Amino acid sequence: MLIRLEPVILTLLIGFATAVPAEETAKRLAILGDSERGIEPCALCHQANGGGSEAIGAPRLAGMNARYLTRQIENFKNGHRPHSVMQPWAERLADAEIAALSEYFAALPPASNAKVPDGMDPKAGEWLALDGDWPGRRLPACRQCHGPRGIGVGQHFPALAGQPYNYLVRQLAAWTTGERTGDPLDMMNAVNARLSVAETQAVAAFYASMPVVKALDVNVESEHGAVPPDADAMRPLTSSIAPAPMARTTPLVHQGEVPAGRAPGTAGHFEPPARGDKPDDEFGAVVALGEAIFTQTDRHAISGKYVGNDQVCEGCHLDAGRLADASPMWAAWVAYPAYRDKDRQVSTIVERIQGCFKYSMNAQASEVGHPPAAESRTIHALASYLYWLATGAPTGDKAMSGRGYPPLAETEQGFDPTRGAAVYADNCAICHGADGEGVDAGNEIVFPPLWGARSYNWGAGMHMINTAAAFIKTNMPLGNFLELTDQEAWDVAAFMNAHDRPQDPRFTGDVAETAAQFHGGRFDVYGKPTIQSKSE
Amino acid sequence: MLIRLEPVILTLLIGFATAVPAEETAKRLAILGDSERGIEPCALCHQANGGGSEAIGAPRLAGMNARYLTRQIENFKNGHRPHSVMQPWAERLADAEIAALSEYFAALPPASNAKVPDGMDPKAGEWLALDGDWPGRRLPACRQCHGPRGIGVGQHFPALAGQPYNYLVRQLAAWTTGERTGDPLDMMNAVNARLSVAETQAVAAFYASMPVVKALDVNVESEHGAVPPDADAMRPLTSSIAPAPMARTTPLVHQGEVPAGRAPGTAGHFEPPARGDKPDDEFGAVVALGEAIFTQTDRHAISGKYVGNDQVCEGCHLDAGRLADASPMWAAWVAYPAYRDKDRQVSTIVERIQGCFKYSMNAQASEVGHPPAAESRTIHALASYLYWLATGAPTGDKAMSGRGYPPLAETEQGFDPTRGAAVYADNCAICHGADGEGVDAGNEIVFPPLWGARSYNWGAGMHMINTAAAFIKTNMPLGNFLELTDQEAWDVAAFMNAHDRPQDPRFTGDVAETAAQFHGGRFDVYGKPTIQSKSE
Repeated sequence: MLIRLEPVILTLLIGFATAVPAEETAKRLAILGDSERGIEPCALCHQANGGGSEAIGAPRLAGMNARYLTRQIENFKNGHRPHSVMQPWAERLADAEIAALSEYFAALPPASNAKVPDGMDPKAGEWLALDGDWPGRRLPACRQCHGPRGIGVGQHFPALAGQPYNYLVRQLAAWTTGERTGDPLDMMNAVNARLSVAETQAVAAFYASMPVVKALDVNVESEHGAVPPDADAMRPLTSSIAPAPMARTTPLVHQGEVPAGRAPGTAGHFEPPARGDKPDDEFGAVVALGEAIFTQTDRHAISGKYVGNDQVCEGCHLDAGRLADASPMWAAWVAYPAYRDKDRQVSTIVERIQGCFKYSMNAQASEVGHPPAAESRTIHALASYLYWLATGAPTGDKAMSGRGYPPLAETEQGFDPTRGAAVYADNCAICHGADGEGVDAGNEIVFPPLWGARSYNWGAGMHMINTAAAFIKTNMPLGNFLELTDQEAWDVAAFMNAHDRPQDPRFTGDVAETAAQFHGGRFDVYGKPTIQSKSE
Repeated sequence: MLIRLEPVILTLLIGFATAVPAEETAKRLAILGDSERGIEPCALCHQANGGGSEAIGAPRLAGMNARYLTRQIENFKNGHRPHSVMQPWAERLADAEIAALSEYFAALPPASNAKVPDGMDPKAGEWLALDGDWPGRRLPACRQCHGPRGIGVGQHFPALAGQPYNYLVRQLAAWTTGERTGDPLDMMNAVNARLSVAETQAVAAFYASMPVVKALDVNVESEHGAVPPDADAMRPLTSSIAPAPMARTTPLVHQGEVPAGRAPGTAGHFEPPARGDKPDDEFGAVVALGEAIFTQTDRHAISGKYVGNDQVCEGCHLDAGRLADASPMWAAWVAYPAYRDKDRQVSTIVERIQGCFKYSMNAQASEVGHPPAAESRTIHALASYLYWLATGAPTGDKAMSGRGYPPLAETEQGFDPTRGAAVYADNCAICHGADGEGVDAGNEIVFPPLWGARSYNWGAGMHMINTAAAFIKTNMPLGNFLELTDQEAWDVAAFMNAHDRPQDPRFTGDVAETAAQFHGGRFDVYGKPTIQSKSE
């Protein structure tokens, strides 16, 4: 189950001097401060509406996630965010005051005082925010963690929408200068290292111009402590082997200008047409619909009724199906029709897509109870989108460079779900949740559930441990900000698939019989879940 | 309606001396001759079983078409086939005796005394016999006129199966040396001119080795006299404008050896993989099934139930969908999905194929009453075949050289069904029949019906006069042994589409309303047939 915690009302304010409720206290501190204790009012910099200040680059606080705010005040206090004003201010606050202030600002109506500098085009950075730059730099889109429209996701991914431009630019730089640390998995340092200064400015302008809404309040804290408070544990590689350098990323474009097009570095792979190059006609409109369905499959008005869980095509096919080594759609298009052992017949690409709905999207549990028909708008749109992505690719090439996931060689130690549990807690839970539940932004899935009722079923390719290990090794964590060892990938894949998930739609009524008919081999653990979901 | 005339029993034997029935007389002449009149018995050369003689290169007569035999004896008599033995022999026969002998041999059980020379591989010429060499030479396969397995079709296309090797080789050469004339449209002269001597030998060996069956007895004589008895009219171009030379054919390979592969000369067009290069696996088997369905659509065990008339895919897409400028399938494959005004939506290639069944194959009148479903074996096989033909073609190229039919510029005179009737009689009726009825070989359509209940319906693309004119100009008569003028192509297209045909399946119940919704423009004559079929 997805966790959707309503803001927790703090009731324990032990050790706080006054008798007034925490909310009142917080409001007084925020607006008036406490001159006796040398505590300046928050409104002095962040403004009375909590919308921040463009002039001094103070962030908006109103409507931010309370746990995120608490963590930041703690970071000021403990020195992870050195700041001449905020550090002494934070040091004067009791823990209960920090919590109360966080709740106070989280509960304020979202507000923004941000202003895009004159002469800057707020749309210039949109592509980085919404699409990222995968082939060039394996750079995820900002929205992939910070949520749709930058609304913010839980305690780790703050809202970007409506943050002052000057604040965003300064913070992005601060990760690289070391002025700011303490983000989980050291992701923002890696992100910033892949951006030019002009790009950080462009993307800051984009988010500064976005309307503010309340941040998504989810708790993805791992029981295993995925986000340890100790900065020394901030690079949570569980392996004693040093990770290989990120060979797939290109020489970084730092301090440069916004590249005219996408950065090079597709390493000889096929390049699909640019997102903006869709034809301006009826066909182009259907391609655009297909792209939207591909990235929002389970919630899209057209395709949602065929999806019986919280999965989207893009979950397994990164960069909207464009990315080499992440099962790109251009390679799939030219490889079908093809004979598949799984289908025991030649299948067309439409049937292959229908198979994704049947298994990975568990269509049986959907509103209509079955995959979209060949004549449906969903299939028309997806087929058109795949076809368009393959523009120029040679028909019949079943071995295009970058097709599927690069197979991962087996390790001497094999794979072990128990070892995998630790890998998961340290590297995956921050996004996918301690119990694999993922994050649901309401109108969009931010991080897909990895097991349980809302995940792929036992017939999906990803239930195979070798397939999952290959996907994880090459593509996870999203953006490859750190590289798992082969052993870690195998173990965490075994852990993921050791949980139960929806039944194989080919279920004959008997697990052993179904296993005999449709499953087999060392990597197939159908019908043998060994780890119980915590929510069950 | 297709004409299937049972052998006509000759009852009029006026002017014949004896009182015995014609059959008895014929038998006596055939076996014993008539020494008094200096008439040698046929059996002397053609053998008692009528199977011909390999030693002296005498053709088999047993089971041949009676009208074909009559015409040949007449040609010996009138000098179109000069022959030192046959000419004086024929001159001694009365017309009734010629007719009786023809009937006698036609009624004999098919027999063959042919023998392939030692050391020759009878399979070496199979590709020419069954596939022809379209891209290289626009050379139709022998079977396309002489019928499946060379059984012979009507009076114009004699059986080839079981003819003595030496006879076939000699006759093929005879067209070029001028030793033999009088074939309709001067086709065999043109065919032989496109073959090397080694090829004529290879193809003769192939047919000499084929088992004999009774020839197909159909009468495709045109009322307009498509096959005039006068040799001077043997090149029946109705236009006063001399035909342009056949620019599309390559320099002819005469007196050479059998080419190792297909001849060159695809004129820069895409080349699909060779027929024999299908992969030797499950997928290849489905491709082969698709090829068979493509060429035998209406009679194939898998696809026949979806076809409501006597049409096959290959009827409009020559050379099994391979030929440039004949709407080749490799160009179609990479052009879909696409938005089509006709469908008012983006259609996939599967839906495009289903459209062919709906309109060109009039599926509504078929056994099942609808086109094959996307999941059907027929669609699997056809889609796989098309995909395989497009191997290496660039995905998304909607303008491949050779796609569709080259559009035909309009002429000053416009188009006129009445003028077209004469063009048809002179150039088309020999194959498609005087009333457009086509030729049905029972297990295979040899020439498709062009109008009436067994032809394409009013929703098919070919009902558009401009589409039909473009197809005809570039591709008809089959093999382009003569070239119609633009004016002739327009007129005969107008003639063809001036006949009635099955209703548009989108029929609303009212012709005017259906026309307003789905038809329009100068080239669309839906609902306005002006020429009545002779069979109605």
